[in-house]
Amino acid sequence: MPVDTPQDQAVPASLSSTARPGIPARRDDLAGEEPYGAPQIDVAHLLNVNENPFGPSAALAADMGAAVAEAAAGLHRYPDREFTALREDLAAYLAAESGIPAPPAEAVWAANGSNEVMHQLLLAYGGPGRTALGFTPHYSMYPEYARDTFTRWVTAERGPAPDFALTAAQVTAAIAENRPQILVLTSPNNPTGTALDPAVVRAAAEAMLAAGGLLVVDEAYGEFRRDGVPSALELLPEFANLVVTRTMSKAFALAGGRIGYLVADPAIVDGVRIVRLPYHLSAVTQAVARTALAHREELLSQVATLREERDVLAAHLAERGHVVAPSDANFIFFQPLLRTAADRHAVWQALLDRDVLIREVGPQPWLRVSIGTPEDNAAFRTALEEADPR
Amino acid sequence: MPVDTPQDQAVPASLSSTARPGIPARRDDLAGEEPYGAPQIDVAHLLNVNENPFGPSAALAADMGAAVAEAAAGLHRYPDREFTALREDLAAYLAAESGIPAPPAEAVWAANGSNEVMHQLLLAYGGPGRTALGFTPHYSMYPEYARDTFTRWVTAERGPAPDFALTAAQVTAAIAENRPQILVLTSPNNPTGTALDPAVVRAAAEAMLAAGGLLVVDEAYGEFRRDGVPSALELLPEFANLVVTRTMSKAFALAGGRIGYLVADPAIVDGVRIVRLPYHLSAVTQAVARTALAHREELLSQVATLREERDVLAAHLAERGHVVAPSDANFIFFQPLLRTAADRHAVWQALLDRDVLIREVGPQPWLRVSIGTPEDNAAFRTALEEADPR
Repeated sequence: MPVDTPQDQAVPASLSSTARPGIPARRDDLAGEEPYGAPQIDVAHLLNVNENPFGPSAALAADMGAAVAEAAAGLHRYPDREFTALREDLAAYLAAESGIPAPPAEAVWAANGSNEVMHQLLLAYGGPGRTALGFTPHYSMYPEYARDTFTRWVTAERGPAPDFALTAAQVTAAIAENRPQILVLTSPNNPTGTALDPAVVRAAAEAMLAAGGLLVVDEAYGEFRRDGVPSALELLPEFANLVVTRTMSKAFALAGGRIGYLVADPAIVDGVRIVRLPYHLSAVTQAVARTALAHREELLSQVATLREERDVLAAHLAERGHVVAPSDANFIFFQPLLRTAADRHAVWQALLDRDVLIREVGPQPWLRVSIGTPEDNAAFRTALEEADPR
Repeated sequence: MPVDTPQDQAVPASLSSTARPGIPARRDDLAGEEPYGAPQIDVAHLLNVNENPFGPSAALAADMGAAVAEAAAGLHRYPDREFTALREDLAAYLAAESGIPAPPAEAVWAANGSNEVMHQLLLAYGGPGRTALGFTPHYSMYPEYARDTFTRWVTAERGPAPDFALTAAQVTAAIAENRPQILVLTSPNNPTGTALDPAVVRAAAEAMLAAGGLLVVDEAYGEFRRDGVPSALELLPEFANLVVTRTMSKAFALAGGRIGYLVADPAIVDGVRIVRLPYHLSAVTQAVARTALAHREELLSQVATLREERDVLAAHLAERGHVVAPSDANFIFFQPLLRTAADRHAVWQALLDRDVLIREVGPQPWLRVSIGTPEDNAAFRTALEEADPR
C-alpha cells in the first residue's frame, strides 16, 4: 500500500544547476531518493500538514521573546545537556493531561521534533540487522527513520477502510511473522486519524515484551483524541518496553519550535542518551518550550475548538456522501465523491486553485484535510462544493 | 593515541536507579558506551569547553528576544525547511570574514550545531562499508559521528608534539593506506590548536578528488586563526569535493544557540538535504542566528581580544617552562611542568579546587585550557602557580 505520492515529496531533488566533476558519490542506497517534505505553497488556507491554525496570543509571543532575551544572556555557554527543568515541566503536563502520576524527569526525553526523537530511538534500539515494523497506511517519515539508521523497515496492513482498525490478532500475527526488534504503533494514526483500542496496545506490548522488543506508540496527535479514548501513557507502569512519543507541534501549536518528546522507563531513555548528539536541544528551544508549557491553558483551549470543528466537518463530509475515516486527530481522511485514483489529484488541484491546500497522502483515492480555523474549514467546504460536486 | 579519558566522558551511564525486567537490548555495538560530554560543573572560571566567555550585550540579548517574539507569532506553522534567508546571511558573513566571493545560498547548509552537520555529512557520504579517516589527537566526537552512521572510523597520527603538524606526505600516505571515502581535517585542530598549512589542505583535496572522496575541513575555530593563515574556504572554487564546516558556537559566542554550518558545492549540499530530518532547524533558531549575524561587528570584536589573550597566555606558559602547542584557536594545549601521566589529573583537580575548570583531553600528559575573559585568564595563571608550581 503506497503511502507517498510524487506530490508528497515535491521538494526538488537538486538545487544545483550545474554538476561539476569530482562530486563524491552519496551512499548507494540513497540513489533516486529526494528530500522529504510536503510542498510549502503560500495560499490562504493551509490545511495540508496538520498544523494548529491558531497562533499564540500576542501576550504569549511576547513572553516567549522575553524568555529568550533572558536565556540570550547566557548563550555563549553550552545549554544544559540534560534539560532537566524542561523534562520536569513535560512530566507535569502529561500528568495533568492524561491523569497519570507525573513520571520522573529521567523518564522523559525531548529532541528537535518527534523526527529526532524517533531517529534517536531507532538508532539506539534498531540499526543494521534489526527490524522495525509498522502498519500501513502510516506516517511517511517512518521509512526514512529506518533508512537513516540502517534499520530494516517492514510493514503489515491495517484493517479495511473506512475504519483502518487494527486488532490484537493482526498485531500479534505481524509480530510473529516479522520478529521485529521495534514495533511502531500510531494512535491516533496519521493519515487515517484512527485511535487504537487500548486492548490492542496492551496485546502489542505483551507480545513485544515476550520477544524482548520495544513498542513505540506515536501519540503525536494524542491530545485530539475523543473523550473516553485512553492514552498509552497509562500502560507505562506495566510495560518496561513501552515508549510513548508526543510532540508540541500540534496541540501546543508549536510546529515552528521543533520540540518532540517521549516517556519511557529511564533505562530506555539512557539508551537514547548514548546516541543523542551532545547539546542537541538549544537553550533557546528549552526556553520557548518551557514558556509554552507555562501557558498551556491558553494553547490547549484551542484543542477543544479543533475537536469540535473536526466532528462538525466529518459529519458534513459524510452528509455529502464522502467515505470518511473516523478521526481522533486534527485532520480528516476522506475520499472524493468520484472514486477513481485519477480523481484524487484533480480534486486536490481544484481545491488549490481555490486557495485551499490539502494533502494527497495514503492509499488512493483518499485525501487528508487538516482542521483549520472555522474560516479555513468554511473555505474548504465551499471549495469542495466546486471541486468535487455532488 | 587515546583522546578520551574517563573524565572526558563523565556523564553517568545510567540515571535510572532500578532496572526492570523487559528493557529491550540496545544495539550490540553500544555496549559499554556512555553519553558523550564534558562535566558540567558550576565553578567561577569555566575554561573547559572552549566557550566564548563574552556573553552578548544587553542590547543584543534584547534584539534576540524581539526577533523571537516576532517569529513566535508564526510558531504554529512549520519553519522554512530550506531556511534560505539564514543561508544568505551566512554566505554574506563568510565573504566578509574570509575575503572570498559570497557563495550562493545553495552552497550553504546549517543544522543544530556542527554535531548535526557532521552527522548529516557522514550519513549521506559515509555509512556501512565506507571509511572516514582522521588524524589524532582529534575532536572527541568524530568517532561518535562515525559510530552513529555506521561508518568505519580510522585514524593516523599527526606529527610529534609540540607542533602536532601534518604534512602533505603524511596525509597522502594515510589516504593511500586507508582508502577513505571521507577525510576529516581540522584547522585549527582541537585539542592541539594547530592550523593547517594550505598546501596540506590542497594536497589532501587533490588526493581525495583522485579517489572520488570527500574532504571535510572542520574550521570550528577558524575565526581565531592568526593573521596570514588562510581558510580552506579559498579552495572551494577549485575543489568540487571540499566541504568547509564552521560553527556559531565559538566566534559568535552562541554555543547555547546550536548553529553549525557548512559550505560546499550545492550538489554536496543536495546529498545532505536527502538525509536531513525535515524542518530540523526551528524558526526560533533561524531568528536567533540571523540576529547574531546582523550584530556580527559586536560579537566578532571579542575575537580580537581572545586572540590577544591567547598569545599573551601562551607566552606566559612558555616562560614558565611549559611545553605549549602553537595555537590558532581560542584555547591552549600545554603540558604540566611535571611530565608524568599521573600528574595531569592532579593538576586538573588542583585547578578545579581553585575554581578553575580546564580539560583533560588528548594524549597524556597534555591539558587544554580555553581562553576566558582577562579575569578568567588571570585566575588560571594564579591557580596554576599553586597547582603546578615551578
